[in-house]
Amino acid sequence: MKLIYKGKTKDVFEAENGQVLLKFKDDVTGEDGVFDPGANTVGLTIEGMGQSGLRMTTYFFEKLAEKGIPTHFVESNLEEATMLVKSANMFGAGLEVICRYRAVGSFLKRYGAYCEEGQPLDAFVEVTLKDDKRNDPPINQDGLAQLGILTKAEYETLVKLTKEISSVVKDELAVKGLELYDIKLEFGLDAEGNMMLIDEISGGNMRAYKDGQSVQPLELEKMLLQ
Amino acid sequence: MKLIYKGKTKDVFEAENGQVLLKFKDDVTGEDGVFDPGANTVGLTIEGMGQSGLRMTTYFFEKLAEKGIPTHFVESNLEEATMLVKSANMFGAGLEVICRYRAVGSFLKRYGAYCEEGQPLDAFVEVTLKDDKRNDPPINQDGLAQLGILTKAEYETLVKLTKEISSVVKDELAVKGLELYDIKLEFGLDAEGNMMLIDEISGGNMRAYKDGQSVQPLELEKMLLQ
Repeated sequence: MKLIYKGKTKDVFEAENGQVLLKFKDDVTGEDGVFDPGANTVGLTIEGMGQSGLRMTTYFFEKLAEKGIPTHFVESNLEEATMLVKSANMFGAGLEVICRYRAVGSFLKRYGAYCEEGQPLDAFVEVTLKDDKRNDPPINQDGLAQLGILTKAEYETLVKLTKEISSVVKDELAVKGLELYDIKLEFGLDAEGNMMLIDEISGGNMRAYKDGQSVQPLELEKMLLQ
Repeated sequence: MKLIYKGKTKDVFEAENGQVLLKFKDDVTGEDGVFDPGANTVGLTIEGMGQSGLRMTTYFFEKLAEKGIPTHFVESNLEEATMLVKSANMFGAGLEVICRYRAVGSFLKRYGAYCEEGQPLDAFVEVTLKDDKRNDPPINQDGLAQLGILTKAEYETLVKLTKEISSVVKDELAVKGLELYDIKLEFGLDAEGNMMLIDEISGGNMRAYKDGQSVQPLELEKMLLQ
């Protein structure tokens, strides 16, 4: 199968009928062996992380489908740690859309003069450009429009979908006594030009806490699905 | 007179009737002797810069008053390089509001993957927090609201005033064959809670070009007013 792109935590292959196959790897973003969903480097490798991430992603993408929220999901092969998805047109070289319920990570780093660590936030949404070289700079609605990356209407849809999806994840975690602090989503356009969630929803792209303690990605999937 | 605050390019004193006196200094932001309106450090000292900045500020604040745009300006003493202004309530520890007509400076640094140097922008407005320690982080409308710094309605007013004021400056420069690339403004609330332009409008807080060449602050004032 033809490799299209070698990502940090997933490899992307060309599949049949214009679809795409994602191979989930055991690599997790972070630094010096410490998990950080906001990091731009592979910080550690966790055996079984690929399959675990795919299980959780499959669970959530099926849940979102039930609720009528569009995603790129077609089907998963858990044994192979692969997910078949619809092909997506990206916004520029890709955006990261972060939804925050607590002030941690880069939010705290940037706005620490105005908030306490862990302070509640009301589903705060922000967009950053996927650009490792420039350290994923944040960009506002007008900037995205002026650079031809996202129209103002698309931005509104993006924020609406982000809040809906994050709320689904938050509620699912809450059932197991887990609290979602923040989550990073990605979006693309399907062949008809409709916006859909792409990439994954796993322990690797969110921060979850239990009783004030951070829950690591593999542990999170176990607590949630087993 | 009681010193309230020692700024990088201005000192702030308590005046009578709850007013404030600004003393314009000869210092200019930049690095290693090179002028940069986006810098957080004093990069150079230019003899006569204080008076020059005040002359230009006075010119523009009087022009804005004619157009009914609210500023904190009361009167200037050019000999002393001081400006008497209304007292202002700041938004948090202060915001910088940047209006951009060309992609240069920190815009280019952040979004260089999506634009060429000097590419035209349609009065792009962005807000950063005045926070030297955190390198003046950009913040979006929702972030400002959630951190209690600026309501969503105040944000709209801020952007509207920024575009109006920047357009006045741009047009004035154009008369002399100068092109405004970007400008940094500050706002506060007057005693009645109305938003007004504060700080200054001088060569020190904008980038101006003539025939594709950057015009230095002191030179700009001369070309504009003499």
